[in-house]
Amino acid sequence: MSYYFKTTLTNSTFDEAIDKTVAALKTEGFGVLTEIDLKATFKKKLDADFYNYKILGACHPQFAYNALHAEDKIGTMLPCNFIVQEKETGTIEISGVDPMASMMSVGNESLGEIAGEVREKLQRIVASIK
Amino acid sequence: MSYYFKTTLTNSTFDEAIDKTVAALKTEGFGVLTEIDLKATFKKKLDADFYNYKILGACHPQFAYNALHAEDKIGTMLPCNFIVQEKETGTIEISGVDPMASMMSVGNESLGEIAGEVREKLQRIVASIK
Repeated sequence: MSYYFKTTLTNSTFDEAIDKTVAALKTEGFGVLTEIDLKATFKKKLDADFYNYKILGACHPQFAYNALHAEDKIGTMLPCNFIVQEKETGTIEISGVDPMASMMSVGNESLGEIAGEVREKLQRIVASIK
Repeated sequence: MSYYFKTTLTNSTFDEAIDKTVAALKTEGFGVLTEIDLKATFKKKLDADFYNYKILGACHPQFAYNALHAEDKIGTMLPCNFIVQEKETGTIEISGVDPMASMMSVGNESLGEIAGEVREKLQRIVASIK
């Protein structure tokens, strides 16, 4: 079982890929609540070079609300992350977490149903980014 | 298998609990990169009432750096979340994710070793919050 859904853009800039990801998330009702720039973080904290890599924390408020009512500690696994990385210049990989995989250890049937619905949305989002 | 480590503070304010959590994370080398206020988010996005609940995204730069070299898509499961929630006034529950649980679907031995070390740190952090 893979734990993410992935797509790859070619001939794109990193910032364009970020914008497309945010726009695709929006069409399915997800807002981006957090953004972590790993390249900048590693430079600042470790003085280490890294390639362009951002983590976007995406949240669908209604699903998050329902999930927390089913399982109050599920905030330890929220929001749903999308990562955008540019290992080779111009080739951008975008991956969204599969919540069924990250939450497989939880063992809560009601949560499982919600995670399954979110999974379908995230899968559609990744497939729509072109 | 539980997917989190938990402690409970009594006779505490919510903000004190947040401060103690941030301080405890710092002693083990973790910085807080993101903070999500779920109560405010649900009010704003859904006009729904919720109790005090924050998600802190904690990152140990060196471990994150090593983890990404072992498994480049692991950013879908980073940072390590700590949640602070106040269901009853004055009683604050603090839970940290168990990375061995959230990452169990990944199946990468090198990553597993790193997650095991991080797990011990997170467990110590939760136990130290009083």
